[in-house]
Amino acid sequence: MKNPLLGPELRELLAANDVAAVRELCEATHPETVADFLSDLKDDEIWLILHMLGVGLRADIFSHFEIDLQVGLATGQNRHQMARLLEEMPADDRADLVQQLDEKVRGELLPLVAKAEREDIRKLAQYEEETAGSVMSSDYAVLRPEITVEQAIEQLRIQAPEKETIYYVYVVNEHRKLIGFVSLKDIIIARPGRRISDFMHTDIIKAGVNDDQESVANKIEKYDLIAIPIVDANNVIVGIVTHDDALDIIRQEQTEDIEKLMAISGEHEITPYLKISVLQHFRNRCGWIVGLGILSMIAGLVIQRYEEVLVQFAVLATFLPMVADTGGNTGSQSATLVIRALALGEISLRDTLRILFKELRVALMLSVVMGLIAFGRLLFFADGNGASAVTLTTLGLAVALALSLQVLTSTLIGALLPLIAQAFKLDPAVVASPALTTVVDISGLMIFFAVVSRFVMTG
Amino acid sequence: MKNPLLGPELRELLAANDVAAVRELCEATHPETVADFLSDLKDDEIWLILHMLGVGLRADIFSHFEIDLQVGLATGQNRHQMARLLEEMPADDRADLVQQLDEKVRGELLPLVAKAEREDIRKLAQYEEETAGSVMSSDYAVLRPEITVEQAIEQLRIQAPEKETIYYVYVVNEHRKLIGFVSLKDIIIARPGRRISDFMHTDIIKAGVNDDQESVANKIEKYDLIAIPIVDANNVIVGIVTHDDALDIIRQEQTEDIEKLMAISGEHEITPYLKISVLQHFRNRCGWIVGLGILSMIAGLVIQRYEEVLVQFAVLATFLPMVADTGGNTGSQSATLVIRALALGEISLRDTLRILFKELRVALMLSVVMGLIAFGRLLFFADGNGASAVTLTTLGLAVALALSLQVLTSTLIGALLPLIAQAFKLDPAVVASPALTTVVDISGLMIFFAVVSRFVMTG
Repeated sequence: MKNPLLGPELRELLAANDVAAVRELCEATHPETVADFLSDLKDDEIWLILHMLGVGLRADIFSHFEIDLQVGLATGQNRHQMARLLEEMPADDRADLVQQLDEKVRGELLPLVAKAEREDIRKLAQYEEETAGSVMSSDYAVLRPEITVEQAIEQLRIQAPEKETIYYVYVVNEHRKLIGFVSLKDIIIARPGRRISDFMHTDIIKAGVNDDQESVANKIEKYDLIAIPIVDANNVIVGIVTHDDALDIIRQEQTEDIEKLMAISGEHEITPYLKISVLQHFRNRCGWIVGLGILSMIAGLVIQRYEEVLVQFAVLATFLPMVADTGGNTGSQSATLVIRALALGEISLRDTLRILFKELRVALMLSVVMGLIAFGRLLFFADGNGASAVTLTTLGLAVALALSLQVLTSTLIGALLPLIAQAFKLDPAVVASPALTTVVDISGLMIFFAVVSRFVMTG
Repeated sequence: MKNPLLGPELRELLAANDVAAVRELCEATHPETVADFLSDLKDDEIWLILHMLGVGLRADIFSHFEIDLQVGLATGQNRHQMARLLEEMPADDRADLVQQLDEKVRGELLPLVAKAEREDIRKLAQYEEETAGSVMSSDYAVLRPEITVEQAIEQLRIQAPEKETIYYVYVVNEHRKLIGFVSLKDIIIARPGRRISDFMHTDIIKAGVNDDQESVANKIEKYDLIAIPIVDANNVIVGIVTHDDALDIIRQEQTEDIEKLMAISGEHEITPYLKISVLQHFRNRCGWIVGLGILSMIAGLVIQRYEEVLVQFAVLATFLPMVADTGGNTGSQSATLVIRALALGEISLRDTLRILFKELRVALMLSVVMGLIAFGRLLFFADGNGASAVTLTTLGLAVALALSLQVLTSTLIGALLPLIAQAFKLDPAVVASPALTTVVDISGLMIFFAVVSRFVMTG
């Protein structure tokens, strides 16, 4: 919660230049809250306040800033002081920041960072984006199996200040291979004198350093973990991913899914909307708009082919939006439900027939309803233009049948396309809703004109 | 990770009726993994195995089952044995289960549950859905401020087995009012002999029992918390919501958002896709499909009004899909980005002008591109039908201008509608993409025919 008193109070203390009081206030407040307040100040004001604090708290608050602000602050700051701050930052945040820095700034800064931390930054930076390695932290606590409960607590007491978490502790052998896991709760509950190896869990939920970040987040979610250990190919522990990282990953993937669904390309990073430049917005959106625009010309060609029918029965043109929209809507609904169910692991390819059967039944109901509406629309509101050759009823039946068929096919296409994408190991969400809409526009118009022209020829 | 060896091994031990070995195997395995395996068995087989285990582990595994399976198992089980199991289950899972049970089963079961747990179930059941109260757990650890570090560890050791977490501990006064917070890490690090009140945090991130569950999850996410305390109107602590609850809430809200965006109504609960009946699917989807279908008739009326123009220049009909689709696509893109940015708190109503200005610039670029494409399409591929009265170039210019205007307006409408919804305290996601598509279809057709008929009249 944004502390409404922090701002005015801090301003007052700054005006009075009361360093001790500023420090005390910042220490008593959650670093995120302090960071929230500082974010609205100018860079030099931020540094003024940060330098009143101990380097540990300073690093803690700093790593709660948005990454853009961090980069700006780091670029303007004295390199030596920034190097001290980097050394104190959480390992994963630090690695993220350094990767975002200008080549030049990074080149000047890194040599000033202590060797151990520099090595650590280099190691974390080597993993590919969106892998477990790229999001993990190297600040995890490890213990040896042969120590006692008392020794374990003592060691954790010493390790605690610089670890992301000491609530999950990993047990390693002499080669740092992961052989067990204990929670701090296990340690607290354990009878004094027991050894870690006596009660450690050996069925460890873990992830590989090259695993996709989403699968890592899903494991944390499934098993309700505070952290998950990340191991290399030799089962050597190299990092942890924590519960708050999992939340960030799930948010990021969520944005990605929604944007894909809406045919927006690009990096899908969590850059705030207003910070993305107009040109970048244009680039992310132009491809799909142009591609789909061109695709919709095919729908235009279908109309062109049946121009004669249209000129003869002009009333048919008034049904074109309904055919196109209804197909897009029913298709999008079924595609969304299938994509979502696939993403949540509720269904898999094995269920294809069950899904299609279910969608078929839903579509039958929808098609009856929409068919009746179309029939009614034509019968009661048509002005009878061009309906001299065939009775209105025949035209109404034709339109109703065409719309029903459109609902049926577009629902099934909507359900089937994500499953096909999945079968080809593609992200089902590539079946973006606008793309689907355009596809079923084409199929819908073909169905519409095929059915209607058959009716009016024989009618 | 699904343990591939657990299944066969457990089956073998069951066949040999080796109870001790089954118990040992289940104790060594993550309860979620055991639950995963058991979920595929028949109800009586599940009970057979569960009854081989201690009641604590039994309850732990049981609460990892899907809620539907839990209800089925609870309904069929001996009421006395089920009551013991309920007593051992985590407080929040237990409350959820009891609420899902048949009135009759609940009536038979609850009187058999020990008084303290029965009271607890009743208390948790009284909160409205989607509030903090409805998702919180009452298994939290509290301490008094005057005790020492050693006493605290001793008390936590005793409390630990039945608490959801002992990593965050809440400090309360004699009236159970929340006065402070310490983490187990703080306690471990603290010098021996210090009192809790000496080092507890008093700037506590907390939530009210009637707060919306999403805002609670957002706080957990923002402050990277393992748990957040829930207080009543008198600042008395009544529960906690943990990091894994936050993940569940965010998943649920995410499904809700995507389904709203795709015009699917209903409860948006996390009922798996295949478990929702065909009739329910139909109900969730029918309203929007019918409503939008009827709305699309308005687009049809626009076409009807300009029938003469269309009959005279039949080539124009081939542009109708492009006008409609492009408007829907550009509008959906900008609406999605704005809805998403609002949901993540990146933008607020104050930014309306900045957003519109940004979208305007993006739309200008997109409209130039699409205008050129439409112009090219008409010039190079038109068969010249009906273009005798005006030159193709004039018609091309008209179509290009109309399409550009359509891109501009639909982008701005897409950005504006979610902001208007927000201003009226509605969920911005009510501006479902299919609804938006239908709205900009209408505006698009009006623009198209207005522009084109003006050109061909004067051209």
